[in-house]
Amino acid sequence: MATVAPRTLSGFMELLPDEQRKFERMKEILRDTYASYGFTPLDTPLIESAEVLLAKGGGETEKQIYRFSKGDNDLALRFDLTVPLAKYVAAHYASLSFPFRRYQIGKVYRGERAQRGRFREFYQADIDVIGDGKLDIMNEAEIPAIIYDTFTRLGVKRFQIRVNNRKLLTGFYAMNGMSERAGEIMRTVDKLDKIGPEAVRQSLINDVKMLPCKAENVMDFMAVKGTNAEVLASLERYRGMDATFDEGLDELGTVVKYLSDFGVPEENFAVDLTIARGLDYYTGTVYETVMLDHPEIGSVCSGGRYDNLAEYYTDRKLPGVGISIGLTRFFFILSEQGLLSEEAGGAACDALVLPMTEDFGAAIAAAAELRKAGLRVQLYTEKKKFKAKMSYADRLGVPYVVFLGEDEIAEGLLSVKDMRTGEQRKLSAVEAAALIRSDAARRALCRVIAE
Amino acid sequence: MATVAPRTLSGFMELLPDEQRKFERMKEILRDTYASYGFTPLDTPLIESAEVLLAKGGGETEKQIYRFSKGDNDLALRFDLTVPLAKYVAAHYASLSFPFRRYQIGKVYRGERAQRGRFREFYQADIDVIGDGKLDIMNEAEIPAIIYDTFTRLGVKRFQIRVNNRKLLTGFYAMNGMSERAGEIMRTVDKLDKIGPEAVRQSLINDVKMLPCKAENVMDFMAVKGTNAEVLASLERYRGMDATFDEGLDELGTVVKYLSDFGVPEENFAVDLTIARGLDYYTGTVYETVMLDHPEIGSVCSGGRYDNLAEYYTDRKLPGVGISIGLTRFFFILSEQGLLSEEAGGAACDALVLPMTEDFGAAIAAAAELRKAGLRVQLYTEKKKFKAKMSYADRLGVPYVVFLGEDEIAEGLLSVKDMRTGEQRKLSAVEAAALIRSDAARRALCRVIAE
Repeated sequence: MATVAPRTLSGFMELLPDEQRKFERMKEILRDTYASYGFTPLDTPLIESAEVLLAKGGGETEKQIYRFSKGDNDLALRFDLTVPLAKYVAAHYASLSFPFRRYQIGKVYRGERAQRGRFREFYQADIDVIGDGKLDIMNEAEIPAIIYDTFTRLGVKRFQIRVNNRKLLTGFYAMNGMSERAGEIMRTVDKLDKIGPEAVRQSLINDVKMLPCKAENVMDFMAVKGTNAEVLASLERYRGMDATFDEGLDELGTVVKYLSDFGVPEENFAVDLTIARGLDYYTGTVYETVMLDHPEIGSVCSGGRYDNLAEYYTDRKLPGVGISIGLTRFFFILSEQGLLSEEAGGAACDALVLPMTEDFGAAIAAAAELRKAGLRVQLYTEKKKFKAKMSYADRLGVPYVVFLGEDEIAEGLLSVKDMRTGEQRKLSAVEAAALIRSDAARRALCRVIAE
Repeated sequence: MATVAPRTLSGFMELLPDEQRKFERMKEILRDTYASYGFTPLDTPLIESAEVLLAKGGGETEKQIYRFSKGDNDLALRFDLTVPLAKYVAAHYASLSFPFRRYQIGKVYRGERAQRGRFREFYQADIDVIGDGKLDIMNEAEIPAIIYDTFTRLGVKRFQIRVNNRKLLTGFYAMNGMSERAGEIMRTVDKLDKIGPEAVRQSLINDVKMLPCKAENVMDFMAVKGTNAEVLASLERYRGMDATFDEGLDELGTVVKYLSDFGVPEENFAVDLTIARGLDYYTGTVYETVMLDHPEIGSVCSGGRYDNLAEYYTDRKLPGVGISIGLTRFFFILSEQGLLSEEAGGAACDALVLPMTEDFGAAIAAAAELRKAGLRVQLYTEKKKFKAKMSYADRLGVPYVVFLGEDEIAEGLLSVKDMRTGEQRKLSAVEAAALIRSDAARRALCRVIAE
């Protein structure tokens, strides 16, 4: 009867239960963290009119779009969460209060060339703060606190939030008469990590056709290193030469000034003048986040300040600041590298109740009582041999098995077996609930990522 | 500059923040409830190979499918969560433990004719228990408990779970020599609620071409009413005439027997012989759930027992039982009818912190401290007049505003204003956290659905 092989498309992540629970736990931590900063959840359609989705048009992305028609409609699957946000804010402008703070964790689609670790369907987890006309620099100063909180709650310790301000770069290139080639220069400098300073210098001279002295200026600027205070002090020497530069320096100063009030330790934050984050979109503070022991992963959380979220949909100026985590790829890499805590997903339930009598009434009632105590309890009622039942409990990874035989029912007790130690005790339902709950609570505190 | 109207496609639900938070709360309650019965979360791709998704082929559904190609691939969007589950279980059979209990809450796509209250993109919330070869009747007996728990946690009180067993119907038609016309008869009887018994009787005689005495038999059978015990007793008169009927009667007896152990009150449950739930798929217990004060909504949670989940993908016999809630339509109707609790979504945050000084350090630290106490806190730092700030707090619906001026900073206190009563008090951070948290806890207990 079976006629079709049950395959899943390549480039589409489909997890087994243990892994899925870890992924769900990550999403839960993100939801909780974002909500704790007053971001409201949003959920927009996965399908939009192609005209709306591709209003900006052109670019590499357009080739990757899943686009199709249904009836008379020219449709497309969203390829990020920013364009739907722009549409949403423009469409519902009158019903929203600004600054509008939203988070969205959802799937997006890009028909990239299939290869290991590249996904065509993947989750993005975004937060954005959108202002109406204006948006204070303090919103940019708050973002590192949210990134810090997010990765700390996920369990990452050795990470660094790298921050720059696009106005510093724009101003610097202007004061050096390089504004027209700023894009080319930034793309070249962006390769610093990959090819090193000497190759970048040569590329600036040979490919971008800069005078050696100008290339030197750029290299000097990018080489500014040190503590945040040292970098800021060092940048002061450029002050007064370009208004945009000065503005960027003030903004960066504000971001750094409030770091400790926001609870971000100095070691998790660095001003990094080489960070540029693409060309057109960002206009102020830009962010990248790297796991210090895994630089090969690249940035796991990036974003920045932009001046005009929805210019294709409305004439209103809607500046904003946002960050995004490519959750599916991040999870894939963590999993590949063995960085996911084994305990984080836990079992699908906290206890498996095994009735040992013909009548299941007492076992059902016991399971219901444990559930009322806040536990996740599965009742096992298949007609199998005892050994098969225990083997099922083992494979599920359930921490406790609760037996109810004639003796237990007569005594009004439950036999509770700790599956890790093998220890078995007779307890009242209240005691059993307390024991199982304290273990569940311990596991709930477990970080998803175990460095 | 604006060139494209920011429209959302018709048939696609897009909620404003207040409504979205209520929807998220519903999803959270479903996740928690399903998990408390040991169901594990699953997330499958929205896109599948058309060959896989349409393996069963034909039917009304196929016309509604979103189907398209990308490169060489013939693709389609899932139109339910059952086919992806079948594929998943067949594909990952060796890695799963059976009974396999999963829940999935996800979007599905059907290109239905657009009309108010009909959605082309909508959430389904499904649970299924899948056995390997066999699956005990107790799994069918447990389902009413889960439905009862789900709707109770959502806040619905006046609802009824209506249950039948397909074997009773199959057996009854067999003992009356009507097996060949069983499908037609069931479809006719299914109209009982809509057109009434007399019209059904006439239709059985005129359209299905039954002898009047046979039609009378069917009408008598369907008219069996009363308490669960009465209905079961009344069905005993048919015992011994057909093996399938007897099996169905035993199964229904088992489901009813354990109801009170499962904590399902008699008034929330009824054996209803008119329930059939489609034709081919279900083979045992079938479920519908109605809100008693809103019968016009129809069934809000339906499902049943089936014998062969994945016959198109594997020769293994995988029986199961499952139920599904059409969440988007359910939410839409609740909202339309004013049945959603105003308080359920709450504000995006529990408190808005308003710094009243030039330097934001103290306000930032206070917000961080409240957040550490488990609160959702938004910092407001836009340069606006006081009145504009308070109006923002008002529009957000935030229950508390926390002020930090020179005085508060000097005294080490926070001014906390209750936005509903207007009362303002100076409190320590610990006291403020306790006050705001107790209010947040009260709101967290609020049911989403207010009957």
